Amino acid sequence: MSSMPPEAGLESTASTNLFFRIRHNKVFEWFVISIIVFSALVIGVKTYPIPPFVNNLVIILDWLITVIFLIEIVIRFLAEPVKRNFFKSGWNIFDTLIVTISLIPIDNSELAVVGRLIRIFRVLRMISIIPELRLLLNSLLKALPQLGYVMLLMFIIFYIYAAVGSTFFAQVNPTLWGDIAISMLTLFRVMTFEDWTDVMYETQVEYPFSWIFYLTFIFFTAFAFLNMVIGIVVNVLEEERQKQKDDTVEELHLEELDQLQIIRAELAELKELMQLQAKAGK
Amino acid sequence: MSSMPPEAGLESTASTNLFFRIRHNKVFEWFVISIIVFSALVIGVKTYPIPPFVNNLVIILDWLITVIFLIEIVIRFLAEPVKRNFFKSGWNIFDTLIVTISLIPIDNSELAVVGRLIRIFRVLRMISIIPELRLLLNSLLKALPQLGYVMLLMFIIFYIYAAVGSTFFAQVNPTLWGDIAISMLTLFRVMTFEDWTDVMYETQVEYPFSWIFYLTFIFFTAFAFLNMVIGIVVNVLEEERQKQKDDTVEELHLEELDQLQIIRAELAELKELMQLQAKAGK
Amino acid sequence: MSSMPPEAGLESTASTNLFFRIRHNKVFEWFVISIIVFSALVIGVKTYPIPPFVNNLVIILDWLITVIFLIEIVIRFLAEPVKRNFFKSGWNIFDTLIVTISLIPIDNSELAVVGRLIRIFRVLRMISIIPELRLLLNSLLKALPQLGYVMLLMFIIFYIYAAVGSTFFAQVNPTLWGDIAISMLTLFRVMTFEDWTDVMYETQVEYPFSWIFYLTFIFFTAFAFLNMVIGIVVNVLEEERQKQKDDTVEELHLEELDQLQIIRAELAELKELMQLQAKAGK
Amino acid sequence: MSSMPPEAGLESTASTNLFFRIRHNKVFEWFVISIIVFSALVIGVKTYPIPPFVNNLVIILDWLITVIFLIEIVIRFLAEPVKRNFFKSGWNIFDTLIVTISLIPIDNSELAVVGRLIRIFRVLRMISIIPELRLLLNSLLKALPQLGYVMLLMFIIFYIYAAVGSTFFAQVNPTLWGDIAISMLTLFRVMTFEDWTDVMYETQVEYPFSWIFYLTFIFFTAFAFLNMVIGIVVNVLEEERQKQKDDTVEELHLEELDQLQIIRAELAELKELMQLQAKAGK
Repeated sequence: MSSMPPEAGLESTASTNLFFRIRHNKVFEWFVISIIVFSALVIGVKTYPIPPFVNNLVIILDWLITVIFLIEIVIRFLAEPVKRNFFKSGWNIFDTLIVTISLIPIDNSELAVVGRLIRIFRVLRMISIIPELRLLLNSLLKALPQLGYVMLLMFIIFYIYAAVGSTFFAQVNPTLWGDIAISMLTLFRVMTFEDWTDVMYETQVEYPFSWIFYLTFIFFTAFAFLNMVIGIVVNVLEEERQKQKDDTVEELHLEELDQLQIIRAELAELKELMQLQAKAGK
Repeated sequence: MSSMPPEAGLESTASTNLFFRIRHNKVFEWFVISIIVFSALVIGVKTYPIPPFVNNLVIILDWLITVIFLIEIVIRFLAEPVKRNFFKSGWNIFDTLIVTISLIPIDNSELAVVGRLIRIFRVLRMISIIPELRLLLNSLLKALPQLGYVMLLMFIIFYIYAAVGSTFFAQVNPTLWGDIAISMLTLFRVMTFEDWTDVMYETQVEYPFSWIFYLTFIFFTAFAFLNMVIGIVVNVLEEERQKQKDDTVEELHLEELDQLQIIRAELAELKELMQLQAKAGK
Repeated sequence: MSSMPPEAGLESTASTNLFFRIRHNKVFEWFVISIIVFSALVIGVKTYPIPPFVNNLVIILDWLITVIFLIEIVIRFLAEPVKRNFFKSGWNIFDTLIVTISLIPIDNSELAVVGRLIRIFRVLRMISIIPELRLLLNSLLKALPQLGYVMLLMFIIFYIYAAVGSTFFAQVNPTLWGDIAISMLTLFRVMTFEDWTDVMYETQVEYPFSWIFYLTFIFFTAFAFLNMVIGIVVNVLEEERQKQKDDTVEELHLEELDQLQIIRAELAELKELMQLQAKAGK
Repeated sequence: MSSMPPEAGLESTASTNLFFRIRHNKVFEWFVISIIVFSALVIGVKTYPIPPFVNNLVIILDWLITVIFLIEIVIRFLAEPVKRNFFKSGWNIFDTLIVTISLIPIDNSELAVVGRLIRIFRVLRMISIIPELRLLLNSLLKALPQLGYVMLLMFIIFYIYAAVGSTFFAQVNPTLWGDIAISMLTLFRVMTFEDWTDVMYETQVEYPFSWIFYLTFIFFTAFAFLNMVIGIVVNVLEEERQKQKDDTVEELHLEELDQLQIIRAELAELKELMQLQAKAGK
């Protein structure tokens, strides 16, 4: 983990306070990571049938974790030399929200679900705290917009097939083809090949040629999907190629051009010498 | 979206009429796109159980959309400087057909299905109106013929296995192996791994060695499919490589060769100088 | 389709007989292809319930096809300048065998199956007659030995897991884990993800930790399979790269070296001139 | 198979004993491989119902194989010039362990299972004896750590979804969502698309929007998996590129630079000559 973010380095003189040193301390970082792992384990334990006293212990641990997280975020906030930069990072806002909502005592059974979800999402803090995971997620998210048009095309394919499907097959099986939304879910199922023949055989009883519907759909989506995958592969390979363009060859060329310049300079000198000699000879 | 197609640019002086300006207006384009999206939503709504008055509204909206589409195509046609070029584009013909058929009032319940399908296919106009989608589809379609022979090979594999399958397994399960067409559908199911073991176990009761049939089929199709995918990947990567061949290196070489030419010229000059001097010295 | 195989070209003077001209005639080639397609259709028709008179027609057509194939092979044999070369081609032997066995009248119901299979395999002649398909199949078969060791590794993984599986799970479900052969088939099913959870849930009742068996197996086979695919991709890309190595750059280098040689020669000449001058000047 | 490991070559004078010659004898190697294959066949035979006398034969063969393996390892140990190097190789330790445990007579029915497993794992000796397989496995294992962070990310995704799943769906179906461990297994099943719709339809009865849970999960895992595969592909391609970097071009550059150096030396010589001439001329 990088112990010093670049933006902090700019005003390092102003931030050599206690909090900055705590926040960029390896021990502190590992402590926070282990607390997140521990909170994940507590969440896991809660899914098992546990005796009441363990349950009480879990509730106490839960509060303890929340308090530690709160202290950690306060330290991180105080460690920030320019305070308003703190909320410029999406991950900081995410962390603050998660901890703040954890602090609200929820006894209402309806909202208790929200409380539980918030506690589970604390595991995501693992990503916010480990820079390598943050980098990985960013690169995953960056790849998405490039695929925008393929996804739009795929959505159009899905929409048209779902419209056709719910128009014709709704009376065959309303559970699968009742309306356009359900039909799209059924088509997603067909795309994953999950018992797609059961879906097909059912409609084939009434529409013997409905296999054309399924086969063309599978063909189109598989083809569009393949295109998407190839698109990502090509992008990644391009980036790699850009990164490590053969600089050695270019350096060799520049060295050669330098040599050629020197040779030209030397030739010019020779010529001058000769012209001088010619004048002298006259 | 490109606001001016190249062929229009050639005769732009003749086409600076009202319609041309409307047709290449951003507002007009976005209006058409939103009408297509709206028509898609209307199609979606129709798949839900709707009260009669909404149904009447939908019918009215449907007619309104058809009329707007008609006007849009008329504008696009009038905006075209050379009228016969209009029907040279496959997409223009597609749009015209879709709108023309929409105009025919169909009350006959048999043909009503055609009317419904036409309305659904109007969503495809999204592809005809957004250039990026049109480009994407074209590149997908262009990749197909290259795969012609692999697909022929795959079809031969399917046909032979279907012939063998329907010869031997027809009496085991006529629903799956009744004739060569049904057998090919069953084999496609086996290829997608969809409950293929159920199909196999059934025939294994009578033919204990029929697993050889299924395993070799899976092997051959998987291998042919893999070959197809690799073929596409290699093609795409080739195209990418062609596009961005390392021009920097070539430019450096040309610069070096220029320098060498200059040096040779300078040497020739020196030689001449010397020969002059030699003559003068005599 | 290439109308003249290279080996025939060598002795073309000797083979300008009638049969050679027939055999390399485009019309003859397309006639044979259409007969193969027609024989495939006949095979397809036979899988449908057909009235007796059509059946008789099919039998007659079948004999007709066999006779045409026989004539075609005889022509191909006679067209061959060096007769023993004919049987050097695996495809020629395959064609001869298929046609010869078709000629044997089989009335015995046991052997009738063989006769049927032979007729189906005649569709494979499509590959032997279309050079592009033959090339494709050859390239597929050539890729196989490179994958030899990955396949051996995969077989060892299968064998070990099948041995473990049939040792422990045989009494749970003898149909799936009865002996090592059946276990390997079951494991292949697990590899294709075909209802693999049903297999797992069954054994988990007795061995709660058997999920480790399945998950590690899926992991190993998926990983080995991935490695195999990557191996093929890398091989294919390597071949592509070899084919179109950037020769332009190398040519530019050679041109530069030539220029440098000329410059050195010119410098040597200059030096000689100067030494002559120096002698003359003394 | 390489007949002489590099480390043995260093002290070859000391090791030209009988055992070294036996150990690196092709006949000996093939004998060991065939014994391993034979032991694998014996394991396979044992999974079939066999008459008692065959069973006795198998037991005798089993002991024979163990003894041969013992002798083989002793020979390999004695053949090692530097004895402590023998246990530096993980495969040697593996082989020794497998053979040693095979020697322990186990009659206890509980431990008999261990004995059986050990006999099965002897098939793995195939990998330890064939260098190509060892190499392949090493390259597979080497690829793993690079994927560390992607796997961590995938585990976090699994953990969070399993926590959410077991929180909400536990009362719907405790068999699938009872606790966080079972939920993770169910999610793995969903990832392999194995009857995932059955799992979804069940929870959709109570939570109609649970399809979002499944679709996002499938999306995230598919995306992370894709990223992993691309990561491996890029790594493999990088290594390939490193291996065969275009050395020809670099050599040509060095040759050019040499030539340029010679030209500069010659020019310097010329200049000196001229200056001498100039002095002489004065």
